[in-house]
Amino acid sequence: MPELRKDPIIGRWVIIATERAKRPQEFKVSHNSQSPSQDCPFCSGHEEYTPAEISAIREKGAKPNGSGWQVRTVPSIVPLLYSSGELEKRPHGIYDMMNGVGVHEVIVESPRHIASLDELEPSEISQVLEMYRQRILDLEKDIKFKYVLIFKNHGARSGATGSEHSRSQLIALPACPKSVKGELDGAKRYFDYKDRCVYCDMISQEIGDKKRLILDQDGFVAIAPFASRFPFETWILPKNHSADFSKNSDDELYSLAKIFKEVLHKIKITLSDPPYNYMLHIAPYRRPKPGYWSTIDQDYHWHIEIIPRLTQVAGFEWGTGFYINPTPPEEAAKFLREAKDG
Amino acid sequence: MPELRKDPIIGRWVIIATERAKRPQEFKVSHNSQSPSQDCPFCSGHEEYTPAEISAIREKGAKPNGSGWQVRTVPSIVPLLYSSGELEKRPHGIYDMMNGVGVHEVIVESPRHIASLDELEPSEISQVLEMYRQRILDLEKDIKFKYVLIFKNHGARSGATGSEHSRSQLIALPACPKSVKGELDGAKRYFDYKDRCVYCDMISQEIGDKKRLILDQDGFVAIAPFASRFPFETWILPKNHSADFSKNSDDELYSLAKIFKEVLHKIKITLSDPPYNYMLHIAPYRRPKPGYWSTIDQDYHWHIEIIPRLTQVAGFEWGTGFYINPTPPEEAAKFLREAKDG
Repeated sequence: MPELRKDPIIGRWVIIATERAKRPQEFKVSHNSQSPSQDCPFCSGHEEYTPAEISAIREKGAKPNGSGWQVRTVPSIVPLLYSSGELEKRPHGIYDMMNGVGVHEVIVESPRHIASLDELEPSEISQVLEMYRQRILDLEKDIKFKYVLIFKNHGARSGATGSEHSRSQLIALPACPKSVKGELDGAKRYFDYKDRCVYCDMISQEIGDKKRLILDQDGFVAIAPFASRFPFETWILPKNHSADFSKNSDDELYSLAKIFKEVLHKIKITLSDPPYNYMLHIAPYRRPKPGYWSTIDQDYHWHIEIIPRLTQVAGFEWGTGFYINPTPPEEAAKFLREAKDG
Repeated sequence: MPELRKDPIIGRWVIIATERAKRPQEFKVSHNSQSPSQDCPFCSGHEEYTPAEISAIREKGAKPNGSGWQVRTVPSIVPLLYSSGELEKRPHGIYDMMNGVGVHEVIVESPRHIASLDELEPSEISQVLEMYRQRILDLEKDIKFKYVLIFKNHGARSGATGSEHSRSQLIALPACPKSVKGELDGAKRYFDYKDRCVYCDMISQEIGDKKRLILDQDGFVAIAPFASRFPFETWILPKNHSADFSKNSDDELYSLAKIFKEVLHKIKITLSDPPYNYMLHIAPYRRPKPGYWSTIDQDYHWHIEIIPRLTQVAGFEWGTGFYINPTPPEEAAKFLREAKDG
């Protein structure tokens, strides 16, 4: 069972993946050979290569764990967290730890062996987003979980391993992650002071300024954030205030699919298909507590953060949390705005 | 002039290095060819290749900017911050920014073209540490600065570029970095509750437990922290409580040099000379303010954090600040404890 350990100073949680236990000689630089499509466990027709599916969007009449699906969610075969067992929070002297209980799922985005989400049609991407929504709503029913993180590692330098078949990952956690808490606290502080959502203010300033605006269409904006940590960092936000991704209608998800495809494609052609990560930043689950009224609905605003992995993070960043970005977001936004095929 | 921009939600500062402005085509993966020693700007005899020195430890009678030195501090030729100019804190709509005023220095650790600090004798490493102490004390005189970060990037994957000549970097900042603040706040919270320093408690538990202890000698310990973020992460701490590195005596620095050399050497032979970063975690400068008494002296404890760069940080970590470490610190400590030459 993996262990969750909490740093006693910062309060940061670490997953000690005890069952992967790496010995020194296993850290030789791997060349990340990616498996060809005939061996790919995520392609249509290879359903038996993965554990039994958790959920799928499939044609009427098509049977579970067979072909005929568009988007398919399966358990990770190298899970970081285990879905069975109790949390068992316990001390170890001055330290805190608990069992690594959680969920680690893989969302396969297409039955075809495509390498990148932007190769899909908006209607197909929309189904991927519908699967995100469905999984978030489904996992909310388990009160063990405080947070669901959905993310993607694209390309070897992003941390992706194995098949290049385009997929997302989902992790449900028994504790709200530190950086999410930082975001929630910051947004709440702003709201307490201004009585306005900081993300809404940001969107309205960016639409006015135009310099960091990449796209503005169908109720969504894509921007290069003012304090971008990384070159070509891009956020996609809904213009209407909402804390919860899971409250999006099908129509809203289709509009999001269109802008998401366009942004990913612009990043691909501008930076020659760079490795990247994206993460869905959403509010944690709110469980009603007597006498407590959460303000997250009004002060938090869900969004997607896309981070191309172009620079090495060095000692300075690790030491300080002070990032160095060699590309001003105004220039990144201009390149992405003007990016065109051919 | 580089700009410092503050994220309006998290409060994280980013240096937008406007004068390095990177265009998309400049992000092709570089092969980090390292310059041979005959071209190395940091070797003895090549003093004219660098800007005029800021400080040096040299033989009696040896002239500044000539040979005859042991440790030499020079301005960075690609500074992230500029030492001239005013901070000019200003808003930009809802955002905050200031000029990138600060200091960026390079501390050359030996006149010889060595690649790694552990190749030096303890007496030589001690001089490097004396230079750290001297620079910290010297920069304290400029009230513009709130924090000094001293760090090292070793090996290309650590973010190091150019010559492999062993050197450290120093950055003096006009704002206390977010992650330093997180550490200070956490340590203060613990002290407020327990009336004890969290680092002192950690040291005493680690000496008792022994499982995560790597070395315990001459007033210093090296440990694999309980909630290690990275495989083989190693901290070196003084056993006697002290917030300030700059208060170390020459004797203490010599003892630190010995354990530091041994730890770096153990990491080198255990992991085949891996890339790594290390950072000196020290208290910020305390500037007396009327009616305010800082508690940092009692609740903070300086230390060195060494991070071998063995794993890729992926979307999950970026999204949550929740790290995944495949090597339990107990196993890392055992390998390092038992590491022997030959």
